[in-house]
Amino acid sequence: MTKECCWCNFTDEEKQNILFESAYWYVFLADNQDYIGRCVIVLKRHSESLSDLDLSEWIELKELINRLEKCFEKILGADLCNWSCLMNDFYKSATPNPHLHLHVRPRYSKAITINGSSYIDTEFGHHYQPKKETLLTNDNRKILLNMMKTFLNQEQK
Amino acid sequence: MTKECCWCNFTDEEKQNILFESAYWYVFLADNQDYIGRCVIVLKRHSESLSDLDLSEWIELKELINRLEKCFEKILGADLCNWSCLMNDFYKSATPNPHLHLHVRPRYSKAITINGSSYIDTEFGHHYQPKKETLLTNDNRKILLNMMKTFLNQEQK
Repeated sequence: MTKECCWCNFTDEEKQNILFESAYWYVFLADNQDYIGRCVIVLKRHSESLSDLDLSEWIELKELINRLEKCFEKILGADLCNWSCLMNDFYKSATPNPHLHLHVRPRYSKAITINGSSYIDTEFGHHYQPKKETLLTNDNRKILLNMMKTFLNQEQK
Repeated sequence: MTKECCWCNFTDEEKQNILFESAYWYVFLADNQDYIGRCVIVLKRHSESLSDLDLSEWIELKELINRLEKCFEKILGADLCNWSCLMNDFYKSATPNPHLHLHVRPRYSKAITINGSSYIDTEFGHHYQPKKETLLTNDNRKILLNMMKTFLNQEQK
């Protein structure tokens, strides 16, 4: 099972997007920055659903949630976070082999400025748009990645 | 704060939709059955975000997730569940007073039959539609409520 799963074997290029790593989880900055700061939290071992998580993994997930919500509030001024665990894409396959992960989209009532560019959450107060294009340039995405990486790795709970 | 929050003070009519109650959480069958079995999991005390949960509440939430995923699989044949914690609607207010809750939408590769009516998850393998109308008649919703209530309250983990 795990050999066929690309979420069990990240490439070196993909690993460049890791913001934080704990015993059981990776936190990636999402490729698509449709909501500024959007991350994907991936379980290191292959597991199919939230039910499959053991207690240590579940407790560590809560610590990551605390750390990320604080990061979004402190460095980006987020008002709230939209959390989801969906896994739909895996079920397009005739033989689904889902790998557990969660998405977090910070949401903003006010404009955020990164490297002189201003970003507005045009759907604030409403459901996120599932299919929205990235807002960040590559350069500004790298700046955000470094800002978040520094905060998440320095910050002690 | 809590006096102004209708999620802190459910009416007797709303309480008819409680499927399961634990020390810290209520599980409601959602009014809108756009995805058959959709539930809302509401924290009993007033709290704004996942970060605010204490460890006991977080561990009990995992027990509810296990119980609900098993219920959806065993009595409805769900393939997976879409979990989300969004809270966007509260932020339409000038003075947001969010009350923590989660949504779960079971997803189905095959048709489900309730009381002789057949229901198909037409978006299976894709993101749920955020604004979809209910599929169930009132009578079939009551049948589903009783089926789920019986399973959730009999089932021992």
